[in-house]
Amino acid sequence: MPYIEDFLELRERVRDGIAAVLGTPPDLVALSESTTRGCQIVVAGLGLRAGDEVVTTSEEHFGLTGSLHASGAHVVVVDPDEDALLAAVTPRTRLIAVSHVLWTTGRRLDLTRLRRPDGPPLLVDGAQSAGAIPVDLAGADFYTVSAQKWLCGPEPTGALFVRDPDRLRIAMPGFLAYESYELDGSFVPREGARHFDSGWIGAAALAGLEAALGVHPEGQYEAAAKATARCRELLEPLAEVVTPPGHATMVSFHPPGDPTELVATLAQRGVVVRELPGRNLVRASCGWWTSDEDLRRLVDGIASL
Amino acid sequence: MPYIEDFLELRERVRDGIAAVLGTPPDLVALSESTTRGCQIVVAGLGLRAGDEVVTTSEEHFGLTGSLHASGAHVVVVDPDEDALLAAVTPRTRLIAVSHVLWTTGRRLDLTRLRRPDGPPLLVDGAQSAGAIPVDLAGADFYTVSAQKWLCGPEPTGALFVRDPDRLRIAMPGFLAYESYELDGSFVPREGARHFDSGWIGAAALAGLEAALGVHPEGQYEAAAKATARCRELLEPLAEVVTPPGHATMVSFHPPGDPTELVATLAQRGVVVRELPGRNLVRASCGWWTSDEDLRRLVDGIASL
Repeated sequence: MPYIEDFLELRERVRDGIAAVLGTPPDLVALSESTTRGCQIVVAGLGLRAGDEVVTTSEEHFGLTGSLHASGAHVVVVDPDEDALLAAVTPRTRLIAVSHVLWTTGRRLDLTRLRRPDGPPLLVDGAQSAGAIPVDLAGADFYTVSAQKWLCGPEPTGALFVRDPDRLRIAMPGFLAYESYELDGSFVPREGARHFDSGWIGAAALAGLEAALGVHPEGQYEAAAKATARCRELLEPLAEVVTPPGHATMVSFHPPGDPTELVATLAQRGVVVRELPGRNLVRASCGWWTSDEDLRRLVDGIASL
Repeated sequence: MPYIEDFLELRERVRDGIAAVLGTPPDLVALSESTTRGCQIVVAGLGLRAGDEVVTTSEEHFGLTGSLHASGAHVVVVDPDEDALLAAVTPRTRLIAVSHVLWTTGRRLDLTRLRRPDGPPLLVDGAQSAGAIPVDLAGADFYTVSAQKWLCGPEPTGALFVRDPDRLRIAMPGFLAYESYELDGSFVPREGARHFDSGWIGAAALAGLEAALGVHPEGQYEAAAKATARCRELLEPLAEVVTPPGHATMVSFHPPGDPTELVATLAQRGVVVRELPGRNLVRASCGWWTSDEDLRRLVDGIASL
């Protein structure tokens, strides 16, 4: 029992920590393993089905679009552009579902433009944003967090912000969803977004996430933005940068030569960047931990080809 | 990339190990975090909804009944008895959902009686059976495994057996579900039950589970059954044992005094048993690791009250 009690307290400390990152009360934060799980919870909770429409962009991860598709709703795919998304909304649109920061180009969408008082709710894939840039949840009804990315947590950890927890159905209840239950599975839910907690998360992973949240420095977003701007500045003479300036913390570029070869060459020089397959793009991720020396290794590696 | 490749190979070794425990090909085993997740995958995949009926027992865990209830189907609850379950089946019954071994009394249900050629499919909660007793999957269409229990794995690990993976809809696809996908989230699924893999499981947890599967001794089931029979034998003069003989590896009993007090007293003596709240029951779990000395500590503790 003490182990369970410690574990439950650890969950609440981690919930508090993620709520602080998102600038929201902990009561609106559910703990989950991943952005994928967060999307599943929302899509199942909304009861999307054939005949419904959802609007998304052409640059989303499968964790989002796979959940949308599996619902049976018609998935309307448009360019990752606020105007294109809004233009695609029809009376049958039940949800707009987009990344805050696109994993492809690093572009940041303007969520407050997408969420309209009379419009459909907005599900935001926050995998490339929470921990990387300041998040303003005014632009979201549902917001997922992948804590093993920019929050530097262990795999698999994450969270889900739910603006109005009592208006989303609890479609995937786990053993942390209820205050009490009956033999037929009907139950009195816990208050707030806790009833969307997705189940057991390993205590070791949670402890790691708590530790990670504790080492994020003051000024982390400014430091990350500065490193990103510097990365762009150094790359622009060498490659065609596609990420707009001032967006988030990833810099994607068309490399001067073959992207696969470039990634391999850079890896040998201690620089980890990734290719975005089929797009002739290489993506560098800059955090508060990225030094000018790191960036020099990147550009020296490109110049060496 | 090597990390990911090692991780995917580790997943396949763990899948092989669990398949061996269940006596089934690995192609029919999905990896998941828990029995709860397995139940969610099946219930969502079957598309249960209002108007459908599911039949279950009055002694199930919330991981099963919560999923059933959340589907909107009418959950018919009967005594944990094969005849009662079969008698409750109607033309609207879409699923029979039961534990193989009841977590309350340790009673084992006869699955082969419950699964009829012309009857509804059978979802089995295997949390208290896989690793404890030999499992014959002839009695199940879907069978969940909680690997952190009798398989001695870390939390949270588990699996789901799916007899006919192509006949269950993929309702909660994760990033391990597909061979390829389109922008709208439509996808070509991986072959077999792998397309039900529930998402990322921490590499540390998987490595722990692989190690645990490797230390299960020859004759584990016989050893566990022997320890359980000995536990009954020692308890019967002291308490009212409710578990029928020869069923599984748990022994539940009405204690001579207050169950909460007994559990606390035993804990001080290094004996971990649990109370089943509201039932005036205490449950002892016997594995291949349980020694005669362990059992002596249990009965001496009860006798000391």
